[in-house]
Amino acid sequence: MALAVKALFFDVFGTLVDWRTSIAREAQALLAPHGLTLDWPAFADAWRGEYQGAMEEVRSGRIAFCKLDVLHRRNLDITLQRFGVTGLGEDDKRNLNLAWHRLDAWPDVPGGLKRLKRRFLLAPVSNGNISLMVDLARRNDLPWDAILGAEIAGDYKPKPKVYLASAAAFDLAPDACMMVAAHSNDLAAAAAVGLRTAHVARPTEHGPGRGEAAPNVPVDFAAKSLEELAEKLGI
Amino acid sequence: MALAVKALFFDVFGTLVDWRTSIAREAQALLAPHGLTLDWPAFADAWRGEYQGAMEEVRSGRIAFCKLDVLHRRNLDITLQRFGVTGLGEDDKRNLNLAWHRLDAWPDVPGGLKRLKRRFLLAPVSNGNISLMVDLARRNDLPWDAILGAEIAGDYKPKPKVYLASAAAFDLAPDACMMVAAHSNDLAAAAAVGLRTAHVARPTEHGPGRGEAAPNVPVDFAAKSLEELAEKLGI
Repeated sequence: MALAVKALFFDVFGTLVDWRTSIAREAQALLAPHGLTLDWPAFADAWRGEYQGAMEEVRSGRIAFCKLDVLHRRNLDITLQRFGVTGLGEDDKRNLNLAWHRLDAWPDVPGGLKRLKRRFLLAPVSNGNISLMVDLARRNDLPWDAILGAEIAGDYKPKPKVYLASAAAFDLAPDACMMVAAHSNDLAAAAAVGLRTAHVARPTEHGPGRGEAAPNVPVDFAAKSLEELAEKLGI
Repeated sequence: MALAVKALFFDVFGTLVDWRTSIAREAQALLAPHGLTLDWPAFADAWRGEYQGAMEEVRSGRIAFCKLDVLHRRNLDITLQRFGVTGLGEDDKRNLNLAWHRLDAWPDVPGGLKRLKRRFLLAPVSNGNISLMVDLARRNDLPWDAILGAEIAGDYKPKPKVYLASAAAFDLAPDACMMVAAHSNDLAAAAAVGLRTAHVARPTEHGPGRGEAAPNVPVDFAAKSLEELAEKLGI
């Protein structure tokens, strides 16, 4: 089966990058100089906690598609208010919002992708916008063939359109593409429209013991790292 | 000025790849075994000659946007008929159409792009579709940050939308982007919507002495190769 797969599509937040540690670090770096002493991981969790609700506004058609950067900014304003942070200047808020462009990859990712690239076309199929994906790629040496996902589809995962538009961009049938993610709901949605699926465990995504250590849906492959996935795919 | 530019956008057919030699070679490789002895460069010229007219159908709104692969196939059928080639099977025609995915870069291109990537974000802003750009990148080692251009804009150059959608994908103002092309009309259209411009001479694009040895419109930079452009940009 693996031989019929031509392209690997990657979820990014959580699957390839450790958003929680990175956002906590960036928030502290930007807000501590203002005399703020927040629970930084809790701040990261709260900001991320607004993510699905904001995208649902787009998925439901209540608002037009906009880049994730725009939704992140709306969610930042909500989160700052919740943590009682006031009086932050526009430049600081804009800079803090771009913290999502400065996330660090899990350690196995750059080497794993390089190895997987020997056999497969590689693209992020993320809800993050193109410029965000490009900044993460530059920062973490992610060797993409193209940036696919939400922005080229004009909608957000897990809507079928995002997976299907990404396969179509590569001129591939859905079953010639494999979605790789640390989230069972993403994989279930990809499988529902015909993609192959691989789960990568990120058991600390939301903090120690708070992440998917294994898939809770049927998948074609399950691995603990991209290196292990490469091995299972015979590379 | 160069310091304000963050991204370089590249025209591809003619500017980065030698389509004429490559198409002539591919056509010969596929058609000679059928006993055909055509003037192969003339066949390449004729196929390419249908290019602007086909895109104008889209630009004018007479037909909906479709990938360049689809227009190339329409143009191939016209060209085969003109050269009196009949009886070719569907597989052969499909394979011949994909000759555009197997073009070779001019010799200065892989090294030049690698050098330019040290300072700038790099993307093709071509009329070629994403899958075609990805295949050319794999074949010629073109280190793109993202694949922008016609397919993400849903229209064809020189329509303003293609340049502006590409700048927007990188969150950049038009004047933070520089269009690099061997064609003055491409550069004039980019400049008209605010992009910076660089001309790269490809004097043999359409055969010996048949290519732009210099721009015929005002440009910010003019060079004989990407290596020379890198030098002029101080890299």
